[in-house]
Amino acid sequence: MPTRADINYFGAGPALLPTEVLEDAAKALVNYNDTGLGIAEHSHRSEIATTIINEAKADLASYLDIPDNYEILFMQGGGSGEFSATAYNLVGAWVARKHKELGSEDSSAEKLKSAVKNLKLDYIITGGWSKKAAAEAERLFGSEHVNIVADSRKSNDGKFGTIPEESTWNLSKDAAMVYYCDNETVDGVEFPQFPKSLEPKGDDGPIVVADMSSNILSRKIPIQNFSAIFFGAQKNLGSTGITVVIIKKSLLPQPSVALMKQLGLPIPPRILEYEAIAKSNSLYNTLSIFDVYIAGRVLKKLLQQYPDKVQGQQAVSESKAQLIYSALEAHPSVYKIVPDKTVRSRMNICFRIQGSDAAEQNFLKQAATLGLTGLKGHRDVGGIRASNYNSVSVDGAKKLASFIGTFASQGGNQ
Amino acid sequence: MPTRADINYFGAGPALLPTEVLEDAAKALVNYNDTGLGIAEHSHRSEIATTIINEAKADLASYLDIPDNYEILFMQGGGSGEFSATAYNLVGAWVARKHKELGSEDSSAEKLKSAVKNLKLDYIITGGWSKKAAAEAERLFGSEHVNIVADSRKSNDGKFGTIPEESTWNLSKDAAMVYYCDNETVDGVEFPQFPKSLEPKGDDGPIVVADMSSNILSRKIPIQNFSAIFFGAQKNLGSTGITVVIIKKSLLPQPSVALMKQLGLPIPPRILEYEAIAKSNSLYNTLSIFDVYIAGRVLKKLLQQYPDKVQGQQAVSESKAQLIYSALEAHPSVYKIVPDKTVRSRMNICFRIQGSDAAEQNFLKQAATLGLTGLKGHRDVGGIRASNYNSVSVDGAKKLASFIGTFASQGGNQ
Ligand SMILES: Cc1ncc(COP(=O)(O)O)c(C=O)c1O
Ligand SMILES: Cc1ncc(COP(=O)(O)O)c(C=O)c1O
Repeated sequence: MPTRADINYFGAGPALLPTEVLEDAAKALVNYNDTGLGIAEHSHRSEIATTIINEAKADLASYLDIPDNYEILFMQGGGSGEFSATAYNLVGAWVARKHKELGSEDSSAEKLKSAVKNLKLDYIITGGWSKKAAAEAERLFGSEHVNIVADSRKSNDGKFGTIPEESTWNLSKDAAMVYYCDNETVDGVEFPQFPKSLEPKGDDGPIVVADMSSNILSRKIPIQNFSAIFFGAQKNLGSTGITVVIIKKSLLPQPSVALMKQLGLPIPPRILEYEAIAKSNSLYNTLSIFDVYIAGRVLKKLLQQYPDKVQGQQAVSESKAQLIYSALEAHPSVYKIVPDKTVRSRMNICFRIQGSDAAEQNFLKQAATLGLTGLKGHRDVGGIRASNYNSVSVDGAKKLASFIGTFASQGGNQ
Repeated sequence: MPTRADINYFGAGPALLPTEVLEDAAKALVNYNDTGLGIAEHSHRSEIATTIINEAKADLASYLDIPDNYEILFMQGGGSGEFSATAYNLVGAWVARKHKELGSEDSSAEKLKSAVKNLKLDYIITGGWSKKAAAEAERLFGSEHVNIVADSRKSNDGKFGTIPEESTWNLSKDAAMVYYCDNETVDGVEFPQFPKSLEPKGDDGPIVVADMSSNILSRKIPIQNFSAIFFGAQKNLGSTGITVVIIKKSLLPQPSVALMKQLGLPIPPRILEYEAIAKSNSLYNTLSIFDVYIAGRVLKKLLQQYPDKVQGQQAVSESKAQLIYSALEAHPSVYKIVPDKTVRSRMNICFRIQGSDAAEQNFLKQAATLGLTGLKGHRDVGGIRASNYNSVSVDGAKKLASFIGTFASQGGNQ
């Protein structure tokens, strides 16, 4: 009958949440702030709900230093919903911009049509999640409109684990967006920093969209370089049920449905339309205020804990990751870290145990007896994955590092 | 500092949840079944999660008597997401059927194209929610493909509150679906029974889709008459974050994306594609297992409480509604019930107080001092709305009925 103190969980998402946040949430669920009603029962249109939404937005903006020209949206549908939403909405924004540039004379309708022939969505593929996002764009817009800027499997034996040199990237000239996944949860590949070739050039640099589902809130990011960032709550922010989008306000306005149809382009279902969600302060339809509440509590805790905000967490995240990678590197004959050293994720530490599958089974079994759980690799790739999200304690990371050492020195893979 | 016992909440959704379910959920949130980990942290791909999903499905099927030729899906995006999803997926199923009928010869491509010219989505508009659903279909498919079968505002001074006689309905001959909202939450209008003209005729009767967001689990429904039924969890089933679809398995298969594009028809974003959700047992992407857990607990409680399942709840729902409507009817000079008597909702009891707006304010204020809350009408229509969902106790309904009487006899509207 383990208690929370007995377990160190390294699951990839849904992830561990801080115990005190869960304890507060448990109370709030039954009776929120002595209102006689639980937080999941209060109306999403109540003042209580609005306060929770606005505080969470303000705290996220403060923690990540998000400037005023960005909007924060709480949506439904998860990261996978955003694979579709980013493509729909950024193509819409691109059309809106072209339409404005060309003016509304009769002749410009033809010009717009021919511009749309060259519409491109650029994807950088570095793992399973960016691959899925690109596949969804191909499904919705047709493969002729999707440009694969780079695919790390090409120069790596068909496997993920690297990030292709920027000099080899094939960026389109006027893409509706360049999309990449900042941290590939399944493959353990993280961009070490913002890509040089995507840096803003003058006023209209490239439209850059990043999936930060599994590394948001864990390091400083140059928000101004991004057009949009999205992430599901269920790893570093909170519980499954809300998805956050941080987007430049100037990209919100969508062209008319009539124009999009005339151009043969798909429009999002209303619940995935950023403009509609922004206009209603994330209350286009019923939102899980419980999930926003949890996210808000996590943010307050981070802000309390780290006077220098995300940079404080970044230092801790790096040192925890270092502990685990060092333990693995100490036994190169036993452990093989999956990705290249330069692109190793601080969040999802993926490794194999040399030898048989049985050795990996053995590792997982022994780890579990010590309360080290959630370590099984993603079913698509196998192996071991230790997810080092914000709620994993330094102590937990130490215990795992120590077990990695013991397992190797006791010949656990024999 | 009210406790839950002091409050009788009549909010329209999110709605009241049974206190014992919330108390169990509070424990589960911190440490689920002594696993040392909370229910929102366990992986959606764990055995624990699968068991919760499968039990909730089985219990829903048992409670509502859902036959084996139906699939139950847990989705994200709310009822509003389903406004889009029903149209996308049922048009897909219609195209799949036509495609099969016409065969794959070269000549049939042209026939299919001309069939699509006559594609119709039929909507019966009886309130704000069916109106919104029809508007979304017009947005996605174009108004030429949307047929308004009936609109209750037409014969009622521009206002909702009736259901037009079936003899006046203008049903299409071969609609991809006929859509209606079984209970209009904002306007207090509920279909008294399944519409005669939508009953199955031979093997391929009409494709009938119903929004039961606000009256599911409260009365017996002839499932076999429906092609699909959907509802958000946040009224009678559980907490905001999951949406349930009950759909005939034979309607799941979608035509190829290439075919839909060739025909100029939109396809759903993957997260709204019923076939994808069905194939993955509702785990196409991360699902809030916490919300499924709550729904499962509510269903177990209903099954325990009512040996004759939904019929048991139906009797209670009717008697609670009767209590409140009778109290209103006893004072016709003070209260005006909004909808026609024949279509009054058992779930959302909408009424006005004759006289001034101030009288309604006064009613709400006095009610609140007695712990009767959540009674304000929807912002689109104003007035008073008492939502009589399953978790509202008989005692709560009695207290409200009694206050309705006292307020009137003390001249509260003067
Ligand atoms: C990087 C990344 N993107 C997207 C997703 C998909 O998120 P969801 O399951 O919420 O659709 C995941 C899920 O783990 C992820 O790790
Ligand atoms: C009958 C009905 N349909 C649809 C909806 C929309 O649901 P959601 O807010 O989950 O999108 C509601 C919301 O109250 C409703 O009452």
